[in-house]
Amino acid sequence: MKAAIFRAGDIVVDEIADPRPAAGQVLVKTLACGICGSDLHAAKHAHNMVEMSRRVAGRVPMDLSRDVVFGHEFCCEVLDYGPDTERCLTPGSRAVSMPVMPLGEARQTVGYSNDYPGGYAERMVLAAPLLLAVPNGLPAEHAALTEPLAVGIHAVEKATLSVEDAPLVVGCGPVGLSAIVGLRLKSVRPIVAADFSPKRRELATRMGADIVVDPAVENPYAKLPAGRRAVVFECVGVPGLLQQIFEAAPRDTRIVVAGVCMEPDRIEPFFGIVKELALQFVLGYTPEEFAWCLRLLAEGQVDAQALITGKVGLAGVKDAFSELANPERHTKILVEPWR
Amino acid sequence: MKAAIFRAGDIVVDEIADPRPAAGQVLVKTLACGICGSDLHAAKHAHNMVEMSRRVAGRVPMDLSRDVVFGHEFCCEVLDYGPDTERCLTPGSRAVSMPVMPLGEARQTVGYSNDYPGGYAERMVLAAPLLLAVPNGLPAEHAALTEPLAVGIHAVEKATLSVEDAPLVVGCGPVGLSAIVGLRLKSVRPIVAADFSPKRRELATRMGADIVVDPAVENPYAKLPAGRRAVVFECVGVPGLLQQIFEAAPRDTRIVVAGVCMEPDRIEPFFGIVKELALQFVLGYTPEEFAWCLRLLAEGQVDAQALITGKVGLAGVKDAFSELANPERHTKILVEPWR
Repeated sequence: MKAAIFRAGDIVVDEIADPRPAAGQVLVKTLACGICGSDLHAAKHAHNMVEMSRRVAGRVPMDLSRDVVFGHEFCCEVLDYGPDTERCLTPGSRAVSMPVMPLGEARQTVGYSNDYPGGYAERMVLAAPLLLAVPNGLPAEHAALTEPLAVGIHAVEKATLSVEDAPLVVGCGPVGLSAIVGLRLKSVRPIVAADFSPKRRELATRMGADIVVDPAVENPYAKLPAGRRAVVFECVGVPGLLQQIFEAAPRDTRIVVAGVCMEPDRIEPFFGIVKELALQFVLGYTPEEFAWCLRLLAEGQVDAQALITGKVGLAGVKDAFSELANPERHTKILVEPWR
Repeated sequence: MKAAIFRAGDIVVDEIADPRPAAGQVLVKTLACGICGSDLHAAKHAHNMVEMSRRVAGRVPMDLSRDVVFGHEFCCEVLDYGPDTERCLTPGSRAVSMPVMPLGEARQTVGYSNDYPGGYAERMVLAAPLLLAVPNGLPAEHAALTEPLAVGIHAVEKATLSVEDAPLVVGCGPVGLSAIVGLRLKSVRPIVAADFSPKRRELATRMGADIVVDPAVENPYAKLPAGRRAVVFECVGVPGLLQQIFEAAPRDTRIVVAGVCMEPDRIEPFFGIVKELALQFVLGYTPEEFAWCLRLLAEGQVDAQALITGKVGLAGVKDAFSELANPERHTKILVEPWR
């Protein structure tokens, strides 16, 4: 089959072996797969990502001397099942799934694995028990947003908010926008959102932000209602940002760190100490949150169309990686490998 | 009056002006005052402390070109009141107080101020409404432990523990030992405590730790009961320790940062992200916690005597600052300016 492959530090389109489902697995056709910021990061800093995974989790997710096919935000069509596998969805059904392949004690991430190519390929092998049927009528391109939406929803869930809290979303990329959706659904208002990009601020408003701020012009913290505890969602993930928040945040602020910073960072703890700041680092989502996000999309509670700013075939993946650097033009580019 | 003065980077005993209580203030005789790790830090890194206070809180606590008298962990005897001041405790009464002088919007810390000498002096001026009578029979030297005890108790309160949590205290100096007392009172067991010093581990056991570990020999995290959420109390406050905890702590750990690190620190956020760690920085205590700690001491719920490892007069303060570097010999040295 055809795939856009991460090979020797580059993205190339080539043929790879057709995947074959083992027991408990399902063969699917990729209908749409979002390009995630983590994929861009992985393409640029692959060796660092592998080394950090080894240090943090004690295992190496992928061998970079071999082919890897990225893509973990997908909607697919069921084709066939492996032997001795319960055929929970009939072939032809559309489905989404958490990008996880459970393998006993270990597990691999579909899209960051040598053995389980992700959604930048014509077909994938997934874990059959993790399939979720896409409710009738929800387009594949919208269903593919389940995964990135779940990331922001999870961040909001981990914040254990009360209506007395005053949320501020720092960075309105896909994660920040998803967090805004989560905050809107929790009715914790006003939702303040900050981003340097006018386009991203417009999207933030569309997703439910009440007040949007260009941090180059205004201080977003000044927009928070007085007398309520600030909850800052850090949705950028670059070194230095945490310290910026430490310096700017009011006393008792809770910081939810949803941005994935893979480099070392420098903080001055004394700011945290004097202000009694709290931090919650977050990653991923629970199966329940993932399923809930699919329902939210199917119920039309998220303006999915507004988030999709481009679609490419496999041949367009490499250029899309560059294009995504421009927040004015792009939020989410979907790969449609059948194009 | 006589005082041990921080002057030009040194501790010297000299005469300073007798303090005179203004309206709302009380003149007291210092009976006992503990030497705090923050005082040692301030003596070594005074300019950094002042600069950090300016950056974090927007104000300079003290002018280092003028005299400062440290000491904020005190028990005292009421001598006289300022004009138009409610005489809540009769002269001769023993009292403790939070080391705070409210001054309208601003406030000063007694013991880190040019205007309000702390407990390393024969007499002090305090805010009359903050006085708490020492219950009958509690020796002044034990009552002086109210403040450092409150620091650890506050850390435990901010941790919002449940009996399902598994606490680990890292560093068994006065703050760590106070945190152990707080954990014992909350009945969150087993309490695991780690310190390189045998003497400190012995004290940890005496304060209520169930399992003590020398981290040079054993991994304290391996002593935590399986299946419960780890809550790590960081009671050391040196650069690098946070990253050590990030690397060693299990998934979902909550870290309560009670150590006061005043230098920049380096962390690798990715450890926090993958493990979904939470941090709560803490400082100080509430008036309720402070009052509660005095009662705990008065009720004999804390083995105060075990914590006191030395007593000096004003002439002994300078040497005591050096002596406190040795955790085998000293935990808390009290200054008795009347000696």
